[in-house]
Amino acid sequence: MVQFVDVRHMRDWITAEGVEARILGIARYIEHDFLRWTSFDKTARIASHSPEGVIELMPTSDGELYAFKYVNGHPINPARGFQTVTAFGVLADVATGYPVLVSEMTLLTALRTAATSVVAARALARPDASVMALIGAGSQSEFQALGFRAGLGISTLRVWDTHPAAVDKLIANLAPMGFDIVRATSAADAVAGADIVTTCTADKAYATILTDDMIEPGMHLNAIGGDCPGKTELDAAILRRSTVFVEYPPQTRIEGEIQQLEADSPVTELWGVLAGQSAGRTDAQQITVFDSVGFAIEDFSALRYVRDTTVGTGFATEIDLVADPADPKDLFSQVVPQHAHRAN
Amino acid sequence: MVQFVDVRHMRDWITAEGVEARILGIARYIEHDFLRWTSFDKTARIASHSPEGVIELMPTSDGELYAFKYVNGHPINPARGFQTVTAFGVLADVATGYPVLVSEMTLLTALRTAATSVVAARALARPDASVMALIGAGSQSEFQALGFRAGLGISTLRVWDTHPAAVDKLIANLAPMGFDIVRATSAADAVAGADIVTTCTADKAYATILTDDMIEPGMHLNAIGGDCPGKTELDAAILRRSTVFVEYPPQTRIEGEIQQLEADSPVTELWGVLAGQSAGRTDAQQITVFDSVGFAIEDFSALRYVRDTTVGTGFATEIDLVADPADPKDLFSQVVPQHAHRAN
Repeated sequence: MVQFVDVRHMRDWITAEGVEARILGIARYIEHDFLRWTSFDKTARIASHSPEGVIELMPTSDGELYAFKYVNGHPINPARGFQTVTAFGVLADVATGYPVLVSEMTLLTALRTAATSVVAARALARPDASVMALIGAGSQSEFQALGFRAGLGISTLRVWDTHPAAVDKLIANLAPMGFDIVRATSAADAVAGADIVTTCTADKAYATILTDDMIEPGMHLNAIGGDCPGKTELDAAILRRSTVFVEYPPQTRIEGEIQQLEADSPVTELWGVLAGQSAGRTDAQQITVFDSVGFAIEDFSALRYVRDTTVGTGFATEIDLVADPADPKDLFSQVVPQHAHRAN
Repeated sequence: MVQFVDVRHMRDWITAEGVEARILGIARYIEHDFLRWTSFDKTARIASHSPEGVIELMPTSDGELYAFKYVNGHPINPARGFQTVTAFGVLADVATGYPVLVSEMTLLTALRTAATSVVAARALARPDASVMALIGAGSQSEFQALGFRAGLGISTLRVWDTHPAAVDKLIANLAPMGFDIVRATSAADAVAGADIVTTCTADKAYATILTDDMIEPGMHLNAIGGDCPGKTELDAAILRRSTVFVEYPPQTRIEGEIQQLEADSPVTELWGVLAGQSAGRTDAQQITVFDSVGFAIEDFSALRYVRDTTVGTGFATEIDLVADPADPKDLFSQVVPQHAHRAN
């Protein structure tokens, strides 16, 4: 039997401790795994593109555990009543090849994306940062807000979305939780006076959500939405005068904001900053960009955290996913009629 | 909710019609999909190797449905009470990116591997073939035997395995089903007089299960077990005097028997033979080799067949794998405590 966390149990697991505590828990696991980055088997995710969107598989392994996530990205989905991003994932034991956990990851991906942003911003934003602009008020936005409050103490938000109803939703969700929220009149208005700028829009297009004139010295840009070939959010001029931090360069060159730059544009790997091998922010005037696309090790960390905190609890059930006959060389005995009926 | 076929339901689904009928059903779907081979998005499977074995993801898509299989291969597993190969798979809707079926595939892979062998042998073996040598009496062996009886009318088997207990098991399973089984004294003895030779051994090594002197004109070799870098079964000299048929050349060059040959050794794609675009067997003296490694489209076909024959029946259940809020942009509402509790 394989440990299984379905949607209901994932929801209960999150609300039992709260979104902020879960984001911080995942952030701890991500930091732990980023510090042993070189021990992972890494590959850019395997994407299957269609006119409507993309379906991706994201595998990685540390030699003891193997993980993969299935995730889609379909920006046109909300207009049809579906979610832009859905996901599920699996942990397996490398020694036997047997799966050990299957988990919902639509909600978990929202948590881990916020957790990764928090890990990066703690390393890269100015220590005195207190105001965050939030460009895009879709599914990821509240998780970013809660992550940054829990991880960096930021509770003032300047929010912009081209759809006013999305901002209404964000305010309805977050105002009761004690945030100080400014409804901006434009992206430029949202960014004005912010210390951290988080972009999490969903259009699959070369968009220019942020133009160079909006960006002030000392800002940290947390660029979440540009995560697919042909899908960017930042003016390339911003990237050219910033220090750009990435997860896994071979994947980010394909999918991130830096797909707009030459193939050898300078980047710094985030794990190296955490490990003290590379410089992070070096002065208060520097503009830092976390060109986030989402990497398999973050999902590995999130699944590991879910496994550790749900095993043996009411937050997990079991599914019978792997036929496992008593004699491992006698798979056929499983489908001899009398045996099969006896097994029922 | 996602349609789900677990081990028990897979077993019931197989035994309801019988192994032979299920293999023939999958073979029909494979033939259908091989005839539209060029409409698939194809990639060699993504392998994560460890000292103990390999874990692989096998994705493909025809633009309407996307499928992937998770599968491991750990030859040392049976000695520890685990199966060499376990698997599960998923079908998804390309238009929305949502998964539509999760299925057990340990048993299903055994059926689809036999089905693929049958599809190849019907195209490549001599029409008068009546005796099959079976080298390797492990998990795949009975499925091969039943597939070849159902698909080609072959009921005489000459069986060899280095482990006598494995042959005992095969005889105990198949003799009651009406097979005429000869217990061979060696691989050479098994092959002597056979029209079709199926090799399905599991060692992860450059093995030479068949040597060139064993092979007679007119034989069809169904080489199943060489399916991994460093894992082969045939003497390269056999390949050099045979016509070699493969599934997807870029994958077979890495994993198949032909990894022993130069990178441009001649091969014929099986789908092309089925489609009438390439010659299959051209005379009764020719030696044909199906260098089978298992390709993603075969799993796509098998999953499609499972879906079509279990939807709306008692052979499938449902799991709640994808968080799907009423407002697709309001994922956060799923984890606001009062909502989460209400949902329970």
